[in-house]
Amino acid sequence: MLSFNCDYMEGAHPDILERLLETNLERTPGYGEDAYTRSAKEKIRRECGCPDAEVFFLVGGTQTNAAVIRGLLRPHEGVIAAQTGHINVHEAGAVEAGGHKVLALPQREGKLAAAEVRGWLEAFFRDASSSHMVQPGMVYISHPTEFGTLYTKAELEALKAVCRDYGLKLFLDGARLGYGLAAKGTDVTLPVIADCCDAFYIGGTKVGALFGEAVVFPERGTAPGFFTLIKQQGALLAKGRLLGLQFDALFTDGLYGRIGAHAIRMAEKLKGILARAGFEFWLDSPTNQQFVVLREEQRKALEGKVGYEPWQELPDGRLVARFAVSWATREEDLDLLEAILKTS
Amino acid sequence: MLSFNCDYMEGAHPDILERLLETNLERTPGYGEDAYTRSAKEKIRRECGCPDAEVFFLVGGTQTNAAVIRGLLRPHEGVIAAQTGHINVHEAGAVEAGGHKVLALPQREGKLAAAEVRGWLEAFFRDASSSHMVQPGMVYISHPTEFGTLYTKAELEALKAVCRDYGLKLFLDGARLGYGLAAKGTDVTLPVIADCCDAFYIGGTKVGALFGEAVVFPERGTAPGFFTLIKQQGALLAKGRLLGLQFDALFTDGLYGRIGAHAIRMAEKLKGILARAGFEFWLDSPTNQQFVVLREEQRKALEGKVGYEPWQELPDGRLVARFAVSWATREEDLDLLEAILKTS
Amino acid sequence: MLSFNCDYMEGAHPDILERLLETNLERTPGYGEDAYTRSAKEKIRRECGCPDAEVFFLVGGTQTNAAVIRGLLRPHEGVIAAQTGHINVHEAGAVEAGGHKVLALPQREGKLAAAEVRGWLEAFFRDASSSHMVQPGMVYISHPTEFGTLYTKAELEALKAVCRDYGLKLFLDGARLGYGLAAKGTDVTLPVIADCCDAFYIGGTKVGALFGEAVVFPERGTAPGFFTLIKQQGALLAKGRLLGLQFDALFTDGLYGRIGAHAIRMAEKLKGILARAGFEFWLDSPTNQQFVVLREEQRKALEGKVGYEPWQELPDGRLVARFAVSWATREEDLDLLEAILKTS
Amino acid sequence: MLSFNCDYMEGAHPDILERLLETNLERTPGYGEDAYTRSAKEKIRRECGCPDAEVFFLVGGTQTNAAVIRGLLRPHEGVIAAQTGHINVHEAGAVEAGGHKVLALPQREGKLAAAEVRGWLEAFFRDASSSHMVQPGMVYISHPTEFGTLYTKAELEALKAVCRDYGLKLFLDGARLGYGLAAKGTDVTLPVIADCCDAFYIGGTKVGALFGEAVVFPERGTAPGFFTLIKQQGALLAKGRLLGLQFDALFTDGLYGRIGAHAIRMAEKLKGILARAGFEFWLDSPTNQQFVVLREEQRKALEGKVGYEPWQELPDGRLVARFAVSWATREEDLDLLEAILKTS
Repeated sequence: MLSFNCDYMEGAHPDILERLLETNLERTPGYGEDAYTRSAKEKIRRECGCPDAEVFFLVGGTQTNAAVIRGLLRPHEGVIAAQTGHINVHEAGAVEAGGHKVLALPQREGKLAAAEVRGWLEAFFRDASSSHMVQPGMVYISHPTEFGTLYTKAELEALKAVCRDYGLKLFLDGARLGYGLAAKGTDVTLPVIADCCDAFYIGGTKVGALFGEAVVFPERGTAPGFFTLIKQQGALLAKGRLLGLQFDALFTDGLYGRIGAHAIRMAEKLKGILARAGFEFWLDSPTNQQFVVLREEQRKALEGKVGYEPWQELPDGRLVARFAVSWATREEDLDLLEAILKTS
Repeated sequence: MLSFNCDYMEGAHPDILERLLETNLERTPGYGEDAYTRSAKEKIRRECGCPDAEVFFLVGGTQTNAAVIRGLLRPHEGVIAAQTGHINVHEAGAVEAGGHKVLALPQREGKLAAAEVRGWLEAFFRDASSSHMVQPGMVYISHPTEFGTLYTKAELEALKAVCRDYGLKLFLDGARLGYGLAAKGTDVTLPVIADCCDAFYIGGTKVGALFGEAVVFPERGTAPGFFTLIKQQGALLAKGRLLGLQFDALFTDGLYGRIGAHAIRMAEKLKGILARAGFEFWLDSPTNQQFVVLREEQRKALEGKVGYEPWQELPDGRLVARFAVSWATREEDLDLLEAILKTS
Repeated sequence: MLSFNCDYMEGAHPDILERLLETNLERTPGYGEDAYTRSAKEKIRRECGCPDAEVFFLVGGTQTNAAVIRGLLRPHEGVIAAQTGHINVHEAGAVEAGGHKVLALPQREGKLAAAEVRGWLEAFFRDASSSHMVQPGMVYISHPTEFGTLYTKAELEALKAVCRDYGLKLFLDGARLGYGLAAKGTDVTLPVIADCCDAFYIGGTKVGALFGEAVVFPERGTAPGFFTLIKQQGALLAKGRLLGLQFDALFTDGLYGRIGAHAIRMAEKLKGILARAGFEFWLDSPTNQQFVVLREEQRKALEGKVGYEPWQELPDGRLVARFAVSWATREEDLDLLEAILKTS
Repeated sequence: MLSFNCDYMEGAHPDILERLLETNLERTPGYGEDAYTRSAKEKIRRECGCPDAEVFFLVGGTQTNAAVIRGLLRPHEGVIAAQTGHINVHEAGAVEAGGHKVLALPQREGKLAAAEVRGWLEAFFRDASSSHMVQPGMVYISHPTEFGTLYTKAELEALKAVCRDYGLKLFLDGARLGYGLAAKGTDVTLPVIADCCDAFYIGGTKVGALFGEAVVFPERGTAPGFFTLIKQQGALLAKGRLLGLQFDALFTDGLYGRIGAHAIRMAEKLKGILARAGFEFWLDSPTNQQFVVLREEQRKALEGKVGYEPWQELPDGRLVARFAVSWATREEDLDLLEAILKTS
């Protein structure tokens, strides 16, 4: 059965797996003290244009978000996020388990607008009882968002300006960053992100690695004691080189970029197929996740043949379906999809 | 200057203060092991019609909410509350600091409707990814609400039924309970509350005590280790008898009821005065807090003469003002208010 | 029955109670925004010789310790304390509930020696795996200690030097500070403490107040957002003026000093009585708590006539008993004790 | 250079890596909902003789300990562990970050004796102020311990009896369990462990897997909501099948047992070599970690040629060195070690 349920159904990109194989019996120190990890960090610093950046590798997204947020906030502070932000919905309360409230703001296609954030902050500090409320300490955004949408450079800079004006940190969750960087027409690059954000992470799990996320603090000293905090969060991999090796491979010979480009090409093809088959797009996503509103007959046509993620029910009862492509999607899978949709 | 800002501007009801004076030099064990505390617990059990209830005295509302919620939830659970619930807004993230997310639901005049909660729970458990989200473990309500409104007995019973169906605890924040019990036409009594809730507290701070809240668990064994948890939360008063004494006084000769009745009489008088002076009521509150929408000239008329709490700005820019009366409000204060409003 | 069990068996010093009575029906803003609180802060700043100090009032010791420690530590840091320190034993894990480990070090009569702390820190940072361990972020001491003993000025300065060398905060728990300041021969004054510590508190609960502890941060900006953190900890008293008033009274006309001096006089008298009656002192305490090792016949002599705190069992099975005096102890109580001991 | 520093220097056992390779491009659901994970769970249940056991796979040891401890304790409870227990020393305060105190008890060669625990519990509950202290809720042991030593069946049963008598959970950290099960003369098997413990985990990271630990709750319903808690801890691997596959391989054709047996053979050989070379054993370990006290000339002989873990400094200044073997150690490595020691 065809499956477009998500972008982490397969293992790793073959180039990465090969590196794991080649080095399997090498003996290295644990916890990221090995040469592969050092090399990967150096490559990431270079790609970000931040020679002084601090880079850390963690296993998964939720633990990364939790660690960065704990590492940057004071206990009386909370994190502003879109109502639909991953940390507010699908992380089982990891941020709150760390003691911090998620201050959920209205969003548009998964994005937080700088003006909205500024307006909220103005109202917050105008409120005479604001000192009895969780203090905003950070803005969390995801790029691409949970809806596949992207910020523009200007939008990121506007968020940066709001954060600067109010003394907040800006943190970008890049679980699918590779697909955002490769999207058509985006002007957001790693150096742009590094310039705008106090912290961000470059997702590996969904972009070719078996697992792994690379946290980048562009400015040294942003999160003192972060290594120990990673350990405390249970997020320090014993065989740390597995993370280093994977990111070293991803940032060698432009693999990360090639993976992104391939997925975007597959996404464009998918969009064409879905459009030609008469699907209604729920929103316009330039990245690897596509959202369509299913009519009943479309639902039936896909049943048992094509997997997708049931995303949410609309107030009128119709279902929004997510189709995801990735580094692992093959042209032939999409051709098969088109064939299925034609016959149905 | 007249002041109706809140219901905790004065010290304690004279009867309570007198008891503190009389007993000041007595020597008693600390931490609530004294006879006054035992007597107060017994009286509260009797008033609630729960001979087996466990009763604990804490100093203030935020610590009480935090302790009860920590005591009854498992770490992966959160607490459902009205968007406007005190725990969601004005407790500086105390619930999250204890590791739990507040699951904020839409409200009407500060109240959670059982049907709304049930609908939310149905949708939650229908969601395929619900196991990745904070699990609902409790419903928190306040009675009176932050807007002075009250649940009916039927509404509480409906909430109880939802909670029973989904295995949730029901917790009632009674910071102003005395004013709710004394309201005209209410059919909610202490035994009704004890019958519907797994936990609730009887507020002292705003109802005649210097400070103090009495937590009641109608069923013995609801919160094992709660004494130690109170200590851990920093909420165990060394001279615990100060709490016992105050609640003993409040539940002697019907003082708690008399305080409530007086405040409700004052509230009725206040409503009449405000109505006659042409104020627009924002909502209809049967308890000691009254909310009016101020016109610009009304604002000016009050300025420098009458204190009130600026409650919130409406979208059209007008201000909602809260006027609170209490056990300490005197008829003459209200007469003076009427005189001021007439001259302006 | 005579009782020397602890120093919080009675209510408040009469001068304090009188102030509460006089002002009972005044209307003031809540949460410490009143004039009494401002006045108390100003007096404390003056006594400490710290015109810029930030002062906060909380209700009890455990919540104060928890709030200060959370406010000053980063999440990966822990607090060094004596094995017998109050935060390590009798606060039900309040520090850990806030996420921080107590790093317990050996003590001598309740005191931490600077050399011991320094040695521990040297070993800690020499350990190759120290980054996998909780990082020391603070040293916590109590003065007087849980055993009634006192640091000298030189000892505090030595601890300050260690803390400075290793970038740690120094926090002094002064739950019984009044009795320490009044002790014979001590060279530790409030200005000395303010000079050595990043944070400390002046205990009220055990030194004449109904309740209340005054936290002092000698240097402004030490704990950003501390007001909100107090609220989050559930430690912000609604009727904040009750705290302000009590500390204002304690620091008016030298009341705090007089209370301390009285208790020390009573302690000296108690020591004489116990010595003359042949009790073996467990250690030499210059403050209001005295510890003696009871022989079986002494135990029996006291039984049913004189209350004391069973402190700990020695390895040989004998019991250490604590006798505490306070602001409320009367000469006649001690005379009666002596009479009882003589007849037995 | 030869290296015996630790048992996680290499990647994975070749049989495991092969399975990852073979299945790399298969598409499976995430988060452990795949068939490999189901199969692995079933095999583990069978090996443990617990058809009803609940099994969960996590990535690493610290997150596993933290999740199990949070999942089984109430907020006012702490966990008893040996002073040298991993959770008390080398997990950067992960247990405390979850809100729980580690109640550290004296140990002997890393082991907790049932009698010691019972004695501590008796004293704890005899203490009049025990309700002001963290309540014991669990006993944590590691098997093998951090020193390579093992409990006997009788010792585990004695601990089980203490836990039953005091209502505590018993949790066994099996990070190196494979090496314990294969040790000569041990009578502790998986069914024995399952019979004695409320929870335990079977370590993968140090026993042939790239990473992964299998938590077993022998009795269904022990930790309600544990899946969500894993997610909240950031310990839920997106590509969960990577864990399932590895454990499926480990429990196919006795691989886990063969890995253990090989390592024990290597350990025996290592012990012979060290003994013949005149090294002083610090303690007698029957498992894959061996501890020797180095003389100065031995230190020099190894320098630059043989890696080991500097374990701890003895009071007399001598160094204890840990030599670890594992599934990946080859006979020839040990032959080379012997040759080096002979020439030096």
